Order: sequence, then C-alpha cells, then structure tokens
Amino acid sequence: MKPRLFTPGPTPVPESIMLRMAQPIIHHRTVEFQKALHDVGEGLGYLFRTSQPVMTLTSSGTGAMEAALVNTLSAGDEIIFVNAGKFGERWGEIAGVYGIVAHEITIEWGTAVTAEQVLEALGKHPSVKAICLTHSETSTGVFTDVQAIAAALRPGFQGLIIVDGITAVGAHEMRFDDWDLDVVVTGSQKGLMIPPGLAFIVLSERAWKSAESSTLPKFYFDLKLAKKAFATDDTPWTPAVTLVLGVADALAMIREEGIENVWNRHARMASALRAGVAAVGLQPYGNPPSNAVTAVMLPEKGEEFSSLMKKKYRITMAAGQEQLKGKIFRLSHLGYYDEADMLAVLYAIESALSDIGHQYTSGAGLAAAQKVFNGGR
Amino acid sequence: MKPRLFTPGPTPVPESIMLRMAQPIIHHRTVEFQKALHDVGEGLGYLFRTSQPVMTLTSSGTGAMEAALVNTLSAGDEIIFVNAGKFGERWGEIAGVYGIVAHEITIEWGTAVTAEQVLEALGKHPSVKAICLTHSETSTGVFTDVQAIAAALRPGFQGLIIVDGITAVGAHEMRFDDWDLDVVVTGSQKGLMIPPGLAFIVLSERAWKSAESSTLPKFYFDLKLAKKAFATDDTPWTPAVTLVLGVADALAMIREEGIENVWNRHARMASALRAGVAAVGLQPYGNPPSNAVTAVMLPEKGEEFSSLMKKKYRITMAAGQEQLKGKIFRLSHLGYYDEADMLAVLYAIESALSDIGHQYTSGAGLAAAQKVFNGGR
Repeated sequence: MKPRLFTPGPTPVPESIMLRMAQPIIHHRTVEFQKALHDVGEGLGYLFRTSQPVMTLTSSGTGAMEAALVNTLSAGDEIIFVNAGKFGERWGEIAGVYGIVAHEITIEWGTAVTAEQVLEALGKHPSVKAICLTHSETSTGVFTDVQAIAAALRPGFQGLIIVDGITAVGAHEMRFDDWDLDVVVTGSQKGLMIPPGLAFIVLSERAWKSAESSTLPKFYFDLKLAKKAFATDDTPWTPAVTLVLGVADALAMIREEGIENVWNRHARMASALRAGVAAVGLQPYGNPPSNAVTAVMLPEKGEEFSSLMKKKYRITMAAGQEQLKGKIFRLSHLGYYDEADMLAVLYAIESALSDIGHQYTSGAGLAAAQKVFNGGR
Repeated sequence: MKPRLFTPGPTPVPESIMLRMAQPIIHHRTVEFQKALHDVGEGLGYLFRTSQPVMTLTSSGTGAMEAALVNTLSAGDEIIFVNAGKFGERWGEIAGVYGIVAHEITIEWGTAVTAEQVLEALGKHPSVKAICLTHSETSTGVFTDVQAIAAALRPGFQGLIIVDGITAVGAHEMRFDDWDLDVVVTGSQKGLMIPPGLAFIVLSERAWKSAESSTLPKFYFDLKLAKKAFATDDTPWTPAVTLVLGVADALAMIREEGIENVWNRHARMASALRAGVAAVGLQPYGNPPSNAVTAVMLPEKGEEFSSLMKKKYRITMAAGQEQLKGKIFRLSHLGYYDEADMLAVLYAIESALSDIGHQYTSGAGLAAAQKVFNGGR
C-alpha cells in the first residue's frame, strides 16, 4: 500500500497547500503577507463562529494553552479542570507551574465529564475564576459536550470557561459567541490541515476584562500585544510565515466546503470508521466518542497487529499513551479525510486481522462503513 | 527584474529545502522523524561549536530569548544588558516582565558596546547574575565582539554570559564552548536558511546549574523538559515537523560547505556590499558592521529610492526601525547568498540612484564589489 497518515496531528496536508508553502518565501512586513494574515483572521473568525479576534501564535497548541491561563489569571486564583486523559491533565500542570490553585475533577479515562459533575465541583469551590475543559480528549478519543456544560453553567457562573479545542475545532460544532465561551485554543496540524507550528486563540470580552487584572508574567505569549498587532494585520513577533500562508489556503477550503458541512463530514467519517471496526469484532474505546479520533481496543496479538498496520500496510496510526499504552490504537479522521480514506484504513485493519488469524467476516468492516455512507441503507 | 529577498529574516530558502518540506508530512513520533531530530541536534552542535545539547523550540527567536532568562534566573536577580538597538532593548523588556532587575548600558544606536564598558557596568553592579549581549544587532547592522567581551570578563566574572545570536549564528564566528559562553539563541529564518518558526538554544554547564535554582515560572519554554526530550531525539511538545526536516537539510549544507567557509563567505559578501554602496557615494550606517546585514543611510529622495528598489527593481529590503525609520535601509547577506546576489542588489541600487538623479560613476559599485571578490586586486 501507499503510506498513509492517520494520526490526530500532524494530519494530512493537501498537496496544493504543501506546494503553496514551497513557493519562494516572502517577508512578513509586506502588503502580500498582511493580506494573508488578514484573510487568516477572517477565516478563523468564521471557523470559531466569533466576532472576536482569533490570534495566531507561533507555537504548538500547548503554548496556546499556557497563553490562555497566564493572560487571564493571577497567582492564587482557583480553577477547576477535568482529568480524563493526558490533555485534560495538562491544564492542571500548567496551572501548578504558575501558582494557580487547580481543583481536579478526576474521572475515569475513556469517559467524559458531565454538566452535573462540573456543577458539583463548582458547588464545592464557588470562588473559582475559570473552568478548563477539553472538547476532544485526543489521548482517549472522547468528546466532551462543551455546549451543554456551558449552557448549564450560564448565567449562574460568570467566571471563565476555557476550552482546549485542539482536536475539536473543525471536527465538532463550535460556536464561540453563541455558547458564551471565554477562551478557545486550537492548533494548526489538526482540523486546519497544515503542518504543526501554529496555534490559535480567541478570548471573549469577559476574558479580555480578566486579562486587565491578570498579574501572571508573560512576554512571548502576551495576548495584549497579539491583539494590538491583530488590529493592523500584524503579529508581535516574526510568525511562521509559510505556515500562515498555508493556513490561509486551508481556511479558504473550509469556507468553500461550508463549516456545517465540515462538521457533518467529520461525523460521517467517524461514524463509518466506528461501525467498520465494530463489524470486524473490535471493541471501541471511550464514550462518547470524538469525531476527530477513534480509539479502539487492540485485538489479541496487539503488538503484531500494530506492526503489520505500520510495516505491511503502511498506515501510521497513534498508539495509546500513558495508562493506555499497549491497550488501544487510535485512528484520526481529523482534517483532510474522505470516504476512501476510511475504506483504506478499514482494508488495512481487515487485512492485518486476517494475517494474525482473528476471526471475522471478510468485508464486514467495509460494508458497515458503506452503509453509514449510504445513510444507513 | 525577478523578485529578490534581502531582508535579515526571513532570508531566502534554498529551493531543494522548500521542496523537501513540501513532501507528504510525517508524524513526529516515528523513527524517520527521530532520525531527523538527531541529525539536527548534531548539526546544531557543529554550528554552535559545542558539545552541549542545542535544543529546538517551536517559536520565534524572541521565545528563545525569554526561555534563556526564565530558565536561568529568578525574580530579583540582577542583569546587565546593552541598549544599542531594538533587539538589545528586548533583553530589558523581558527581564522587566519577570521582575529581574535589569541594568542598562545605554549607548548610541549604530555603535557597539566594548569590553571596557561592560567591565565598568559590572564594577557598578557587582552582584549581577547575567550579562546579556546581542552578537549582531539587526536593527542597526552593528556587530558586537562577544568573543573579546567574554575573554575580558573571564575568569573574574563567573555569572552567565547570555547571547542573542539570532542574526549572528552562521554569519559570524561562534565558538560556544571555547569562548566560555552560557546561553546562545538563534532563529531558523536567519543563517539557517529556512522559514521562520523554529528557535534554537544552548546552555553551558554553568547555565544548567543556574537552572537548578531558577524559580521563574515556565511551562512551554521549560528547558529541563526540552533537555530530557533531546536525550531521546524528541521534543516535549509537537514540533514544527516540516521546519525541522528543512533545518536538517540546511545543517547538512552548512557542514558540507564547512563552518569556517560559511563565516568567510558572509564576511566576503558583507565586505563587497559595503564597498559597493560606498563606491556610489552612499554612507554606511553603524560601526563595526555586522556580516549579516548592512545598514546604509538613505540618499536624498530616500522615499523615492526605496519605492524604486521595491517596485521597479523588486528588491525586498528592510527599512529602519523606530528612531532609524526613514533614515536607513538594510540589506541582508545572511544565509543563502552568493556573489551574484550582491551584484544583483548593487545593480538595483545603482539603477535606482540613477533614476533619482544621484551623481555617481556608473558601474562603480559593481566594480568595487568585484575587487573585493578578487581579493583586493
């Protein structure tokens, strides 16, 4: 088989964008680049469904998560975060470094926090300034219903709702303004279909107000500087120029497809892949499932299966992390994927299962996916 | 004319590297990528002349400057920095944000700090923990003799010597270990010839010892995490994958040319360009000049001259910044430049000067450059 990438970041980059980024480099203080940054700003507003400035940072998504906290909070402030995976945990780690008092909602990996659990934690810690959520927990493939949680919290809670949307934005519905969120971050190598190196962050008016009194130190990630620069289609520091040009094209593709169509396509891919793996007797991991990444329990002879997937069928997938190491595998359908990609990975799964002697009906996975694509018929 | 880029970052990227980066993206937790990161680590050690790990950060150079301070210092620590341009000034700005007491050596823009001035400042502030220098001040085109300053400071001064080498590394001799420096940072879009988005940082044993007691908060820029990851050819956060692959190729080019040949080439380009602009009656700005970027006083009708350079001759050059706005123009010869590039820009300068009616002998600039290339004959 041809090599194929199914990791939840980096995700495949459209060839046209790769070639756009390979054109002779331009300087960032030029009319041409300013126009690209302007388009990126508009496109990100469309993607996040917001009229607030969505700022572009040159960093990984983790940098944007740090920016979210250090710009809106002060040492001694309290937050609630959810530890249901490696990335939810990270909110607590960043908070700890900055002297923010982080109250953890500990739930089993593979499950999602509910609005009731968040309200209960808020009841115990009524003075928290922010609640940090993970819209799609990449390490477990689990979706958190941020919309429902925000709806349950408002209007009673007037603190900040901060969302790691790193593998969710572009894959799941996100309506920053309508849902009354305060900070959402994402990364470039996810739903935005370009290589890693950029992160994006948006703040609500409430969050900007909080930024006024934030005393945590920041320089590179100072969002007041980023906002000021945004107003003139600029960035405070030299941005990753080629990636910005790439994301301008990616955002144009998203607008052309239409954001609701993009969300629906992710739901359809995820649903087909889940149906396919279940049809060949594999056990999905995690509930409710994310539309960005599907986690599946490894079959018996899991190591051999993974090795066949990689070496014989040339599928690069993601393994389990930390406590899920050796227990699950993860397949991305985040960004630039279509029906044929899902069939390709199901072909590889069926074939690798056959190679290791796993009993199933040949073609059952492909047929189940096709049925989803046919709208259940 | 064909469009040509002469800015001190981004600098031109070799076509082969652009196309390397345009190949299908790979995941960062793969053998292939680990090998690239390993090669980058080795190549950076060669470039910085050090046996210490040189770590790769996904950020602009400013991010690496912040990392330099927050990893080695604590609030209340004192430093000395030199304000002789926009980038020297930045050390003081970052320090201010983190509660570091920053003593400024203020010298005229366009000049360089001397060892005597540094020693004098140290005499006044004997308890400083670090001295922050700017090897090549991009805003003024001035070179600071870091080697001489370090030699004058040692062994009496056992604090940290921290160097912004952003436009110097690759253009000027840099011997991190031999010169007994403590931190040096650089960026990807400079002497390393790739697009912006990566920064590089190296710490001495003395600096790592200082890092042990540093209490300033850091997460994304925590270099202990970066060092630990470096040991296994990894990074703590998802790196800018395509740029890492690009810099692996760029470092291979540098090794093939030989680092001393690279330094000598930069000296030759700079010398030829300086001779060329002087020969047509323009006034160089700044002394001693950097071999990375040449600053020149704008001629009369400077605005018209700049506009012709940009629009008629399609040379993207850098303007003066802050107090030098409207007074100078700056031309880069940092990274992927050769003799013909210097002739191209001198042709444009001669032609634009002719267009605005500036009196000079046609071809004098080109001839002066050729004389330098011929070794003065």
